[in-house]
Amino acid sequence: MKNLKLHGYWRSSASWRARIALNWKGLPFEYLAVHLLKDGGQQFSQDYRAVNPMARVPTLEWTEADGQARKLSESMAILEYLEERVPSPALLPTDAYLRAKARMLAEMVNAGMQPLQNTSVTLRIKTELKADEKAWAAHWNVHGLTALEAAVQATAGRYCVGDGVSFADVLLVPQLYGARRFGVDLKPYPTLLRIEAACNELPAFQAAQPDRQPDAQPV
Amino acid sequence: MKNLKLHGYWRSSASWRARIALNWKGLPFEYLAVHLLKDGGQQFSQDYRAVNPMARVPTLEWTEADGQARKLSESMAILEYLEERVPSPALLPTDAYLRAKARMLAEMVNAGMQPLQNTSVTLRIKTELKADEKAWAAHWNVHGLTALEAAVQATAGRYCVGDGVSFADVLLVPQLYGARRFGVDLKPYPTLLRIEAACNELPAFQAAQPDRQPDAQPV
Repeated sequence: MKNLKLHGYWRSSASWRARIALNWKGLPFEYLAVHLLKDGGQQFSQDYRAVNPMARVPTLEWTEADGQARKLSESMAILEYLEERVPSPALLPTDAYLRAKARMLAEMVNAGMQPLQNTSVTLRIKTELKADEKAWAAHWNVHGLTALEAAVQATAGRYCVGDGVSFADVLLVPQLYGARRFGVDLKPYPTLLRIEAACNELPAFQAAQPDRQPDAQPV
Repeated sequence: MKNLKLHGYWRSSASWRARIALNWKGLPFEYLAVHLLKDGGQQFSQDYRAVNPMARVPTLEWTEADGQARKLSESMAILEYLEERVPSPALLPTDAYLRAKARMLAEMVNAGMQPLQNTSVTLRIKTELKADEKAWAAHWNVHGLTALEAAVQATAGRYCVGDGVSFADVLLVPQLYGARRFGVDLKPYPTLLRIEAACNELPAFQAAQPDRQPDAQPV
């Protein structure tokens, strides 16, 4: 994998997941900012839709040794692919059942929480349904984080699954940032907060933080 | 894997995915119906929350040869686990890039579409936001299916990725059923409809259909 380019947005949690994984695997990449709000959303431009018809971030582009151009979107698919191409350092446990649990915890965020709070959804709640989009997003965060706090009890060590960083941690950290933005009280989730703190000691997680990205804006 | 039990609901698309995969892998299972609407939603019962704190279907339970009890939820994690435990017949291509594309297409449904139309979400749109939940769900189906129809052009053969059935097909078929329920016109997605028809010729897909489940109700 050469000439890696990541199309992302500084505080898109799905872009953030891809940044963590690329950092973790030691893969340098060029960061191409797609502003989700400017110009009515740059992700809807014809140019970006040609890269990703879903009009979402992230998309990873690269070149193979034989010169073939490649592109891949959907953060979970990107994580799985990086894990297959660069197995070490790992982002999944070696035991098959624990690997399944790491994926399960990751999907509780990926399918269970984040889709309900992404920019296109909160925008529609606000502008079309004339409802409180922060309350909407907070509701699904509380539901999902309550379930996640319960579920990690079965597997947590220093991280979500034992003492090795996994997909579950990669998904957790950006989700908690999102939950804070929507005003969710995180005190009921002490295990998740403890794991977040452990992750944030790691350089791969630190370098992926939104405020360290070139397109970051003052909050 | 012995004594396989699948907690599901006849027309939950995530349960349906798990049924297809179990059938495909030739794994017999006991089907335990969780009625998502009766009794205020049986998934919210204390008994079921002990099985799955997310209060969602499906959950797969089984016993290992050494007697250990296992359980796993989140349909994508279940699919990945079954693929690892019973690699043949496969549900992912052998080429790593095509495997990534199959996961990408699957996640366009799993994270991009289905979470916005699941029962708990449409119920909240209707009862809390007093909005038209069918129009809400249809909107996200149109957005997602348009992207999916565009994305499969790069990989489709008889199925979503070449001529082998993959996760992408397992996710597609239940999603199209959901789209019809929400009144979405499917004519703009001829490739997806063609692939659906090809899948529905396969016994593993046929046996997984909602109306063939013991908890099916007249529509």
